Amino acid sequence: MQLYIGNKNYSSWSLRAWLMLEKNKVNYSEVKLPLDTPQFYEALKDITPSLKVPSIVDNGIHVWDSLAICEYINDVYLSGQCWPESLAQKAKARAVACEMHSGFNALRSEMPMNIRAKRKLNISDACKNDIARIEQIWSEQMLACRDQGGWLFGKWSIADAMFAPVVMRFRTYGIELNPQARLYMDKVLSCPVLGKWITEALQETEVVQIDEAGEEVS
Amino acid sequence: MQLYIGNKNYSSWSLRAWLMLEKNKVNYSEVKLPLDTPQFYEALKDITPSLKVPSIVDNGIHVWDSLAICEYINDVYLSGQCWPESLAQKAKARAVACEMHSGFNALRSEMPMNIRAKRKLNISDACKNDIARIEQIWSEQMLACRDQGGWLFGKWSIADAMFAPVVMRFRTYGIELNPQARLYMDKVLSCPVLGKWITEALQETEVVQIDEAGEEVS
Repeated sequence: MQLYIGNKNYSSWSLRAWLMLEKNKVNYSEVKLPLDTPQFYEALKDITPSLKVPSIVDNGIHVWDSLAICEYINDVYLSGQCWPESLAQKAKARAVACEMHSGFNALRSEMPMNIRAKRKLNISDACKNDIARIEQIWSEQMLACRDQGGWLFGKWSIADAMFAPVVMRFRTYGIELNPQARLYMDKVLSCPVLGKWITEALQETEVVQIDEAGEEVS
Repeated sequence: MQLYIGNKNYSSWSLRAWLMLEKNKVNYSEVKLPLDTPQFYEALKDITPSLKVPSIVDNGIHVWDSLAICEYINDVYLSGQCWPESLAQKAKARAVACEMHSGFNALRSEMPMNIRAKRKLNISDACKNDIARIEQIWSEQMLACRDQGGWLFGKWSIADAMFAPVVMRFRTYGIELNPQARLYMDKVLSCPVLGKWITEALQETEVVQIDEAGEEVS
């Protein structure tokens, strides 16, 4: 299997698919492409019709979109173990993973992932609402499941893959959270697999400038 | 099972979950709430922490987000039959369904679903790119699978649920498509189940004004 990703410092969607493979020790080879360069689009044109990362090619099967990749790997390589076993917990894990996948647009546009940076932002009300909802998800799950492994649903699941880049954003922009949600952030940040991604992000030399409003400056 | 939805004329996410239940003849009762009213938020506060529709409650299990609801119903009631059987086709169907679920933001903001309306818009380049990518998905799938049932992957799948509101938008805003993609639109628009939704949308009396830019005017 080949996994195509963008810059580790910036590509939040890439991190999700990469974590899914790394956390579960699935064999793959990584192809890293610098985002928004001619090389990026040239390399992806025969890989994914969406021209976006992450994308995988596995025995001739092409899969794109972070959630579709996670579901594929879970089905094909992991016997479904990356969703909780109980029907109710699986339903809830999918709901919060999907909520992240399709929503939180204010947070995603105002607080782009930038692992190397530390900065403060003026945050819009819409973004504050996004942060409050994520804090609610994390703290509710910590109260319900923390004793079962420390991840959102006890053992690590696709829901944790979906929220990992949000943890990186909250760290970059110094977002304060309630103690339960903070416990979840600490759990994620102490994960050695994520640590490997962070180390590699810090070693990258490509720089995308981001202005006060969180927009990339070319 | 209770399904909570918004106005049929406007709520594109609701249509996806409703189609999943109706197309597959799953028993449920419908609770329709007028979008963005005090009654809407009051009714949802004990149903879904996202405070959004669609949402279901099934034997005490609460599931929200259109894709999570589709996956839940497929797992629990339909033995997985709403994804294609072949591994490669299932992966592709999930990829395009997820691409719709997380993307096409320009299309979603500039061309809100409004089944009762017929209008022309000045469309941005970003929205034109979204339309071109959707046209590519539909026409590619029609060329590959049309003889197998007329839906994107032959027989009806969650991918068709995801794209149904886009068909309604393209109809409202008079978007011209290539002949293959047009065949798919015709297939969707001739579906009696969707016809039932359209009839009910036309009978609704709540009106949300939408201006030239596609924004709701209060």
